[in-house]
Amino acid sequence: MKIQVLKNVMLKNDAIGADNRWLFDKKKVFAINMTSSPGAGKTTLIRSSLERLTAMYRVAVIEGDLFTSRDAERLEDFSIPLVQINTEGGCHLDAKMVHAAIEKIDLDNVDLCIVENVGNLVCPAAFDIGAHRMVLLYSITEGEDKPAKYATMFTRADVVIINKVDIAPYLNMDLDAIEAEVRAVNPTCRIFRVNSLDASTLTDWFAWLDSEIASTLQA
Amino acid sequence: MKIQVLKNVMLKNDAIGADNRWLFDKKKVFAINMTSSPGAGKTTLIRSSLERLTAMYRVAVIEGDLFTSRDAERLEDFSIPLVQINTEGGCHLDAKMVHAAIEKIDLDNVDLCIVENVGNLVCPAAFDIGAHRMVLLYSITEGEDKPAKYATMFTRADVVIINKVDIAPYLNMDLDAIEAEVRAVNPTCRIFRVNSLDASTLTDWFAWLDSEIASTLQA
Repeated sequence: MKIQVLKNVMLKNDAIGADNRWLFDKKKVFAINMTSSPGAGKTTLIRSSLERLTAMYRVAVIEGDLFTSRDAERLEDFSIPLVQINTEGGCHLDAKMVHAAIEKIDLDNVDLCIVENVGNLVCPAAFDIGAHRMVLLYSITEGEDKPAKYATMFTRADVVIINKVDIAPYLNMDLDAIEAEVRAVNPTCRIFRVNSLDASTLTDWFAWLDSEIASTLQA
Repeated sequence: MKIQVLKNVMLKNDAIGADNRWLFDKKKVFAINMTSSPGAGKTTLIRSSLERLTAMYRVAVIEGDLFTSRDAERLEDFSIPLVQINTEGGCHLDAKMVHAAIEKIDLDNVDLCIVENVGNLVCPAAFDIGAHRMVLLYSITEGEDKPAKYATMFTRADVVIINKVDIAPYLNMDLDAIEAEVRAVNPTCRIFRVNSLDASTLTDWFAWLDSEIASTLQA
């Protein structure tokens, strides 16, 4: 019985997700769904990326959290459209929440929309919010076994950003081994190694975004 | 409609959870529900604790994961009852899963049952699995803002174990500030600071377990 109802909910979610994507396409906005464990560094990566990105593109950010507007507050010094969604305990963003958020943004004046999902390596994998790509942040502090243990999320990621690589020596972590674990469950995703506090490590990430945004504008 | 069904599921879960707790009480087993983000160090803490704990008590461990038996395999060199639950994508353990697991354990010969939940700071908070206490591991690598952002989980914890404190200097993290953030949402929980790789930092954790197990045996 639970499964039946969940199926209905998902069908409705997927329909609204498709509608969100149609809207992004129509307005030529490239949209990403950024996911990770709690504290992997999503907001920090967005902060470090915005200085460069806002010089080139019109960027909007949608922040998802159970409670608080702390993530949105960390981005307040950028003059960009910024919407905080509070799920009030909910474990993921769904398409309807994101739909309500993009209604508050003038998409005619946006090239890139970054949606920061709730920090959770399970539930967000099941809900299409209408973004074009799913970007998964993976902090090396979580250990090398997460791709196999949270395979649904890692399998669905278009990009896996391995973060906090600067502290690998203090943690005795092998970055090649971590990357091999990602590859074992997702052979085709793009993988970048970054320290989200240091914009100089974000070159490949920026190049990927440039290419995707250019494709969206030409579509 | 979704809420109605979820309510039924929760009522049923809570009834089975209460039944699990009744069984633990009857067999004089102290049971803990160990929760955290992915990679906060639950299995490592269990590993580091087992050498001391198995010398004093009869311990059983139930491992919850979406996929793989990697966590259980990390404990295989201890001669203890060990059950791996795979949720096959599910975001939390529920009472029914734990009930099935304890049916495989001879509780007459157990003093302490440690249930390691799925790494997730959201969903496990909603499901009573029948443990006596919820022990939440909180890795400092996740940043100091997690208690407010994942308030439901932190509010329900009886114990918060702040882990990986040894690398605080490399992360520029203030442990007093982290503890204050925990206190702000949960003024009464016990808080321990540990490095789960180093058993010498686990003295307070062991003392708390000793006290709780003693109370269970006397009940």
